[in-house]
Amino acid sequence: MSSTYGENIRVTIFGQSHSPAIGMTLEGIPAGEKIDFAELAAFAARRAPGGQAYATARKEADQPEFISGLRDDVTCGTPITAIIRNTDTRSRDYEELRVVPRPGHADYTASVKYNGCQDYAGGGHFSGRLTAPMVIAGGICRQILEREGIQIAARIASIGGIRDKGELTEEVLKKSFPVMSDIQGEKMLNRIAEAKADGDSVGGIIECTVFGLPAGLGDPMFDGMENRIAQIVFGIPAVKGVEFGVGFAAAEMTGSENNDAFLMRDGRVETKTNHCGGILGGITNGMPLTFRAAFKPTPSIAKEQDSINLETKEAVKLVVKGRHDPCIVPRAVPVVEAAVAIAVYDAWLGRRKETKR
Amino acid sequence: MSSTYGENIRVTIFGQSHSPAIGMTLEGIPAGEKIDFAELAAFAARRAPGGQAYATARKEADQPEFISGLRDDVTCGTPITAIIRNTDTRSRDYEELRVVPRPGHADYTASVKYNGCQDYAGGGHFSGRLTAPMVIAGGICRQILEREGIQIAARIASIGGIRDKGELTEEVLKKSFPVMSDIQGEKMLNRIAEAKADGDSVGGIIECTVFGLPAGLGDPMFDGMENRIAQIVFGIPAVKGVEFGVGFAAAEMTGSENNDAFLMRDGRVETKTNHCGGILGGITNGMPLTFRAAFKPTPSIAKEQDSINLETKEAVKLVVKGRHDPCIVPRAVPVVEAAVAIAVYDAWLGRRKETKR
Amino acid sequence: MSSTYGENIRVTIFGQSHSPAIGMTLEGIPAGEKIDFAELAAFAARRAPGGQAYATARKEADQPEFISGLRDDVTCGTPITAIIRNTDTRSRDYEELRVVPRPGHADYTASVKYNGCQDYAGGGHFSGRLTAPMVIAGGICRQILEREGIQIAARIASIGGIRDKGELTEEVLKKSFPVMSDIQGEKMLNRIAEAKADGDSVGGIIECTVFGLPAGLGDPMFDGMENRIAQIVFGIPAVKGVEFGVGFAAAEMTGSENNDAFLMRDGRVETKTNHCGGILGGITNGMPLTFRAAFKPTPSIAKEQDSINLETKEAVKLVVKGRHDPCIVPRAVPVVEAAVAIAVYDAWLGRRKETKR
Amino acid sequence: MSSTYGENIRVTIFGQSHSPAIGMTLEGIPAGEKIDFAELAAFAARRAPGGQAYATARKEADQPEFISGLRDDVTCGTPITAIIRNTDTRSRDYEELRVVPRPGHADYTASVKYNGCQDYAGGGHFSGRLTAPMVIAGGICRQILEREGIQIAARIASIGGIRDKGELTEEVLKKSFPVMSDIQGEKMLNRIAEAKADGDSVGGIIECTVFGLPAGLGDPMFDGMENRIAQIVFGIPAVKGVEFGVGFAAAEMTGSENNDAFLMRDGRVETKTNHCGGILGGITNGMPLTFRAAFKPTPSIAKEQDSINLETKEAVKLVVKGRHDPCIVPRAVPVVEAAVAIAVYDAWLGRRKETKR
Repeated sequence: MSSTYGENIRVTIFGQSHSPAIGMTLEGIPAGEKIDFAELAAFAARRAPGGQAYATARKEADQPEFISGLRDDVTCGTPITAIIRNTDTRSRDYEELRVVPRPGHADYTASVKYNGCQDYAGGGHFSGRLTAPMVIAGGICRQILEREGIQIAARIASIGGIRDKGELTEEVLKKSFPVMSDIQGEKMLNRIAEAKADGDSVGGIIECTVFGLPAGLGDPMFDGMENRIAQIVFGIPAVKGVEFGVGFAAAEMTGSENNDAFLMRDGRVETKTNHCGGILGGITNGMPLTFRAAFKPTPSIAKEQDSINLETKEAVKLVVKGRHDPCIVPRAVPVVEAAVAIAVYDAWLGRRKETKR
Repeated sequence: MSSTYGENIRVTIFGQSHSPAIGMTLEGIPAGEKIDFAELAAFAARRAPGGQAYATARKEADQPEFISGLRDDVTCGTPITAIIRNTDTRSRDYEELRVVPRPGHADYTASVKYNGCQDYAGGGHFSGRLTAPMVIAGGICRQILEREGIQIAARIASIGGIRDKGELTEEVLKKSFPVMSDIQGEKMLNRIAEAKADGDSVGGIIECTVFGLPAGLGDPMFDGMENRIAQIVFGIPAVKGVEFGVGFAAAEMTGSENNDAFLMRDGRVETKTNHCGGILGGITNGMPLTFRAAFKPTPSIAKEQDSINLETKEAVKLVVKGRHDPCIVPRAVPVVEAAVAIAVYDAWLGRRKETKR
Repeated sequence: MSSTYGENIRVTIFGQSHSPAIGMTLEGIPAGEKIDFAELAAFAARRAPGGQAYATARKEADQPEFISGLRDDVTCGTPITAIIRNTDTRSRDYEELRVVPRPGHADYTASVKYNGCQDYAGGGHFSGRLTAPMVIAGGICRQILEREGIQIAARIASIGGIRDKGELTEEVLKKSFPVMSDIQGEKMLNRIAEAKADGDSVGGIIECTVFGLPAGLGDPMFDGMENRIAQIVFGIPAVKGVEFGVGFAAAEMTGSENNDAFLMRDGRVETKTNHCGGILGGITNGMPLTFRAAFKPTPSIAKEQDSINLETKEAVKLVVKGRHDPCIVPRAVPVVEAAVAIAVYDAWLGRRKETKR
Repeated sequence: MSSTYGENIRVTIFGQSHSPAIGMTLEGIPAGEKIDFAELAAFAARRAPGGQAYATARKEADQPEFISGLRDDVTCGTPITAIIRNTDTRSRDYEELRVVPRPGHADYTASVKYNGCQDYAGGGHFSGRLTAPMVIAGGICRQILEREGIQIAARIASIGGIRDKGELTEEVLKKSFPVMSDIQGEKMLNRIAEAKADGDSVGGIIECTVFGLPAGLGDPMFDGMENRIAQIVFGIPAVKGVEFGVGFAAAEMTGSENNDAFLMRDGRVETKTNHCGGILGGITNGMPLTFRAAFKPTPSIAKEQDSINLETKEAVKLVVKGRHDPCIVPRAVPVVEAAVAIAVYDAWLGRRKETKR
C-alpha cells in the first residue's frame, strides 16, 4: 500500500492538504516506550513553517492529537494514531488549478491515475503538508533510538549550488539553520531570498548521518539499509536522488581508492575511511551511516509557466497563486531525519527476530 | 523479507554462490503468458561472463531449469520457479577469507549479522552471481511489458569517469557494448584494461530508460515509481546511488529551469523537457521514465589491502585471490533492465486493481 | 501487523475502548466510489447497542467522522480514515480489574504480552467496541460490492442451542432480529433474557451467505476464500470456530454424498448441491458462498468467578461489574457481514490484476 | 501472494503435481539452526504414501534436495530452498479431465480463474502432493520449537463418524496410526476399507495440541493465534472447518460454563479448564493450544458422478480414474502438525521484536 511503510513497524499516513485532518498510524512499537511530548513538539517545530523568510506564510498549528496507542503517555502495544487538524485551508486559491496542471506537481499524474476524482486542493495527498505526520512517526522512533544510543543528524549540504563546508557532526542539531558553516548558511539564505524576489525557487541537498548504530542491521538484497532508506526517503516530496557514502562519486573511483580498509580501533572493528557510508551488502558495519538526498526546487513558483487546459486541450499561461516556500530544503531537514529514524528503527527491531537466542 | 520483492508480483531470490543451486520464484504472473525461451536466453546471455576482457574467467552455463509455473511454456497462474546449478565452484579459493573480511565486501557485516554462520564461500547470498535469477525474473516481466508496447533500454553512462555521449535511445539494445558513442566505449574498455593490468578495478554509472509507459502508473508516497525502482535497484550489489531524471543536478537548478512545461503533442499531453524523468508525485506522466544508478568499483582487487583477522584481532595484509571482473558495469546493464522490468510490471499490474471499472 | 488486514485493500483498526477515539483507515479503494452515508449509518446502527434487551446499556453515538480519503463524498484514491469518539467511558468501573484478570477475557494474556503496559480499561484494543470501525470499513466495501451485484446477508443460526429454521435468504436483511423463523427468534430472545436474569450469558452461531459472486475469486493455498475469510472473522472477538459449506458435517460424509455434482442451469455452470459452500480449491465456483462462525458466550458475567491477583498470586473471587451484553450474537451479525465484505472485496479487486488482458 | 505464508518467516510453496519438481522456500529462519535431516525424513515419512491400505498406490520418494540456505547442515541466514522431483507422473491418466471437471475438485474453479491455462494434470498446484513441501518447511520449524520446549502432536479425532476416545497426549506421536484408542483406530481403518471397497471415500477430523507454549504469543485482531493458524490450516486441501478449544460447542454453553477460571498451580498461572484452547484475545495463555480441523472426504472416488463438458456444455457421467486415497485424514496428520509449527514459530519469532528490552 502506497501510504504505508515498514516491516516490523508499520507507518500509515493519511489525509489530504485540505481534508478535515491529516494523521498517521504507527503499529508495532513495543509496549512500555514513554513518549516525551515536549521533545516531540520541539522536533516537529523544526519542520513547521512560520516566521522564516524561506517558508510559506501559511500558519499551521500542527498540534497532533493522539487518539490511540498510549496509556499515560506510554505505548500500550497497540496502534498509535495521531491526527492534526487542517484549519487554515483556503480552497479557493486552488479551484482554478483543477483542469490546469501545475508543472512539476502531481496535478496531472493524479488526474490520470484517479480519473479526475483526485482531491486537487492544495496538492491533496501529495502535499508537502503530509510530511507533518511522518515527522510525528519518525519523532517517536527517533526518541526510542536515542535511548539505545543511536543519534540521527542531518544538515543542508547545499542550496542552489552553494555548499556547506566541514564534516557533519551532531553539533548541527543545535543550529536553527542546520549547516556546519554559518558563513555558507548565510549565503544559502541570500540565495533563497534572491529566488523569492525573483518569483522563483531553488533546490538543494540534505546530508544525513546516523551515529551509534551497531554492526549487523539490515539485510541482503531488497531489504538492505540502502533499499529501506531509499524507499522511505523517496516518499518525501521533491526528492529525486539518493546516494550512500560517497555515492555517485564512487563511480569515478578505483577499487583501491574506494575500498574501506578494516582496522581495530579501541578493540572495535572499524574502517579507515567510510566511503561505503557504513553499509556493506546492505548491512551496517558499525561506522556512521551516511546518505544524501537531492531535492528539486519547489515547483510552485510565481513566474508565469506554460501548461495546458486538460478539458479544452488548449495551451495556457499559468501563474501559480497561493503561498509557497521558495526553498523547502530547510524545512525538509527534520523530515529526512524522521524518515531515516523510521527505517532504522524498523531494521533495529528486525534484528531481534533474526538472531538465534 | 529481504530476498523478496514486489506487491502484485513477488520475486524471491534464493541460493548462495557455492550452494548446489541458485534460483528464483516469481508469483503473481497472470496465467496465459507465453515465455519466449530463446529471447530469455539471449537476454540472460548479456549478463553472463565469458570471453570479454572485463569479465571474470569463471564460466557459468547459467542455464535455468524451470521446475514449476508453466504448462507448455505458458504461465499457468501458479508460482514460476527456475533454478540454475552451481557447477564451477572452487570453494578452496575462499576458505582463507573466512576470518579475514575483504574490504568493500559483505564478509564482515554478514559475519556479525549471522553470528559466524554465514556462507562465506564466494560471497554466499551476497554474490553478484545472485543477479542471474534476477535476470530471469526480470526477463519474463520484460517480455510481457514488450507485448504491451513498453520497452526498457539501458546504457553505460560512464566508466571510471569516462562518459558516453548522446541521448539514450532504444538503438543501444543492438550494441554488444551498450554505449551510444562507440568512441567513448572504446575509451571505457581501455580504462577497464588499464585497471585490470593495475590489479585494480573501476566503477561506473548505468542509465536506463523505460519507453512507452502510459501515464498513471505508481502511487503517492512510499510506492511511487522512484521508491519502487530504488528499492529493487539498490538490491543489485555495488549500487550506491540512484537518481531520477536530472536527479542530483536538480538540486542546483531553479524552479523555472527545472519545471517541465506541459504541452499538447499529437493530441497527447507531454512535457517540453523531461527533467523529472517521467515521474511526478511518484506517478508516471507518460514521458520516458529515466534514471541512473551509480556502481562502485568491484571491491575484489588483486592489490594488497589492509584488513584484520576477526579471531585474533590482528592487522592483516590481504590479497584477494580468485577470478573477478575488473569492472562489473557492462554485465550489470541487463541486471538493471531486469530490475526495472520487475518494478514496472509490478506497478503495471497494480494499476488494474486501482481503477474503478 | 495485527491490526491490519488485506492485500489489495488494507484495513487498519486503531483505538482502545477508553482512548480518546477509535477508528479505521482503509487504503486501496479505487477513486470514484460514491459513499452513501445514510446507508452506511443504517448498516452501522445494526451493530450499535441501545434499547435492545440483549445489549449493553452503554450508549454509543458511534457517529464516524471521515477525516480523509474523500472529496464530496466520493473516494479520491487515497487512504480513507474515519474516527469515532469515545464519550461514555467510565474508567473507574475497570480500575480494580488491572491485577485480577477476568476469565474468558484477554486481560491476563495482554498483561503478559505487553508487560503490564496494556490499556486494561474496558478491554482496551481487545474490546468488542473495536468492531465499530470494522463495520465502517466493511460497510464501504459492502456498498461497492452491491453495485457489482454481490449481496451479503447473515443470520443468527443459533443462540444457546436454539436453532433457526429454514434456508437463509436475502429476506433476512429486512428483519430487526435476523432469523428466518420468527418463532425460533422469540425462543432465542427468551433464552437471552433467561441468561441475563441469571447473571449469565449465552453464545451462538452466525451463518452468512454471499450471493451473486462470480466464479474465479480467491486463490490456491494460503489465500483461498476460506483462508481470507477465516483470517478476518477470527478477528471478531469471541469467535472460536469457522466452517464453510457443510463444514464439520463433511467429516462424517462419504465422498459420493459430499461431492457437489456439476450441471448446467440457464446456460450457467452450477452444482446440484452446495456442500462446499461455493468454494473449491480456495476459489469461488459461482454458487453462493456460505460459512458459519461460532461465538462463545460473553465472558463478562455477573456471577462470581474464580480468578487470581496477578501481584499477590492469591486466589480471588471476582464479580465483573459494568454493563455487558448477555449475548453478543445479535449485534455481531453486521460485524460478520462487514468482515466478509472486506475479505470478498479484497479478493474481487485481486481478480483484476490476475487476469491477462 | 497465495502460495506464501508468514510474517516473520515466510514460506513459499511452488510446483504442480506433474511439473518437473515441487518445493518450498523458507525465509527468515535465524542463522545457526542445525537441521536434523534424519528426524526431518522421519517426520516427512508420516505423510508419504506407500503400503498403507488407506493411501494411494502412487509411490513418491519425496526425497527433498536442499539447494540453498544451509552450510554444513546449519542455517546460514538466507532463504532455504528444497525441491522434490516429480518422478512417478502419469499425465495420460488426467488428459480426459481437462474439459470435464471432477466434482469436489478445483478443476472447474481453476479453469475459470486461469482462463483455461491451468495445469490440470493431477490437480496441478491444488494437488495434495503440494503438502509435501509444507511438511518440510513445518518440519524445520518443528525441530526448532522442540529445542525451545514446544511440542506439537495431532491425532485422528474421527473418521467417517467414528471417534477416537480419551484425551490427546504426546504419546500419540509414537503411534503409526495416530489415535489414543487403538480399538477406535481399528474401527476407523475398517470404515476406510469399507469406503474403498465401495469405490467411495470418507472424511474426518484432526485434533492438534501444542504443548509447552509460553503465554504471550500472538496478537490482537487479525494476527491472533486463531487467525494465524486458520489461515495456514485452510491452506491444506480438503479442510472445511477449524475450531479452537471447545469451538462450536462453546456456542451452546453459558458464560459461567465456558469461562476458564484462573488459578495458581506450582507457582504458575493456569486455568481450571481449557475451553478456550489456550488462546484469549488471540494470545496464548500458557495452557496447551488446541484446535480441530474438519476434512471433507477425498473428492476423487471411483463411483460414477455427474459432471459437464465445459466445451460442449453437455451433461457427462464421469468416472475418475487414477490412484487415490479413500481417506486422506491419516496422511494429513503430519501436515496439520507442520502447518501449525509454521504458524507457531512465526508468532514465536514475532514475540521477540514486540518486547521492549
